[in-house]
Amino acid sequence: MRLVRFRSGGRDGFGVHRGEFIQPISWEPFEEVADDLEEIETGAARLLAPVVPTKIVGVGLNYTDHAGELGMEIPGEPILFLKAADTLLPPGGSVIYPSQSERVDYEAELAVVIGERTRSVEPEEALDHVLGYTCGLDITARDLQVADGQWTRAKCFDTFCPLGPWVETELDPGGLAIELRLNGEVRQSSSTSRMIFDVPFLVSFISSVMTLNPGDVIMTGTPPGVGEVSPGDEIEVSIEGIGTLGCSVSAPGE
Amino acid sequence: MRLVRFRSGGRDGFGVHRGEFIQPISWEPFEEVADDLEEIETGAARLLAPVVPTKIVGVGLNYTDHAGELGMEIPGEPILFLKAADTLLPPGGSVIYPSQSERVDYEAELAVVIGERTRSVEPEEALDHVLGYTCGLDITARDLQVADGQWTRAKCFDTFCPLGPWVETELDPGGLAIELRLNGEVRQSSSTSRMIFDVPFLVSFISSVMTLNPGDVIMTGTPPGVGEVSPGDEIEVSIEGIGTLGCSVSAPGE
Repeated sequence: MRLVRFRSGGRDGFGVHRGEFIQPISWEPFEEVADDLEEIETGAARLLAPVVPTKIVGVGLNYTDHAGELGMEIPGEPILFLKAADTLLPPGGSVIYPSQSERVDYEAELAVVIGERTRSVEPEEALDHVLGYTCGLDITARDLQVADGQWTRAKCFDTFCPLGPWVETELDPGGLAIELRLNGEVRQSSSTSRMIFDVPFLVSFISSVMTLNPGDVIMTGTPPGVGEVSPGDEIEVSIEGIGTLGCSVSAPGE
Repeated sequence: MRLVRFRSGGRDGFGVHRGEFIQPISWEPFEEVADDLEEIETGAARLLAPVVPTKIVGVGLNYTDHAGELGMEIPGEPILFLKAADTLLPPGGSVIYPSQSERVDYEAELAVVIGERTRSVEPEEALDHVLGYTCGLDITARDLQVADGQWTRAKCFDTFCPLGPWVETELDPGGLAIELRLNGEVRQSSSTSRMIFDVPFLVSFISSVMTLNPGDVIMTGTPPGVGEVSPGDEIEVSIEGIGTLGCSVSAPGE
């Protein structure tokens, strides 16, 4: 099932994407889909970021080769950071290149969406708390990341978390092909099987620190091949079994 | 005016604290207080953290002497981090000492509460976007802060942001005495005049990165004198013109 969030007729709502139609639903994770609501033509709706999270948790350096390309050590435990909710960008949106930075990078990531309130869950049961998966970009102002030491400013500019197009609920996150194309050229190509800490471990680890709520997002880290973007660029992230998230890059004030 | 959030009769609401009574209001920052809602006896209500933020932004090393006591350099720009919303703890609540840490510290801070949607505001106009001020504690697992390098895990355990007791709306944040007492002994005693980056600058700086929304919180950094807590400890933070926030520390599972 593909869960979307959409704007149609001045109203925002959640729905099931069925190709030509969107079936509206009220947002209750795992709920049965109501059949009695009127379908909306997909062309008449604009897709939004598919979740309304209370938190977006990022995981640093979760693919061996990516740690290497940044000259950073492989961590013994996941390194966590948060992205502010205002970083969310809908599918097809524009990442705004901030005037404070001279080096902004793409980072394609598998995004995990939490389905129910989760606190200190064991890895063996962690996937029962997951609603599904979507494509994400952890856009990062690399120069500010290095200058600050702390990663928050570099990763929290508005629009720095494109997410979507939908949450795919029927998926095993363990061995999915993940690819990023910049202006049509493949720049990242890997598999989620190459994560250092897998999805069940991450959900468990994070939930032992902070409560995860329905709609919360875990950005699971990026594979090697990160690189810089410029205003005018087009970015696409494709993940096997989910689909493709597209966005562009615009200069401030555009 | 002292704005509170409270639970009474199974219902959560915002109100104006008038000593023996709380005057309920609907939450619209800067709105006129409605006179036609029934007052609630203060003793019949339980105070909650006074805000429902979309983000809590922390500022590291914002008092010269505190940077010195941690052996860290004074930053040229504010160092930002985020605390998850689930860190919020009501006045009188218990900070849960996490089993993952062997060194948890108190950090008393002036907390700024944003009143309206704020994006790239100049310092000269920044205070017009502030609803008011309250007392906060940026509880920090110091050993994990050092081990991780990134501060997120160390500062994001549930209950690690006691906040309250209310938002005082009539206050100049520039020269307020701030004091922390641990089990009745004064451990931090300073003035907000000793901040490296003052409140107008912080609001401006942060709003140039991320949109600030009504109810969002900026934790403005802690003065020197930080130290460790243990289960059973009682902590009080007093800030001139606001009042006193109290909380205790409990072991996991208590």
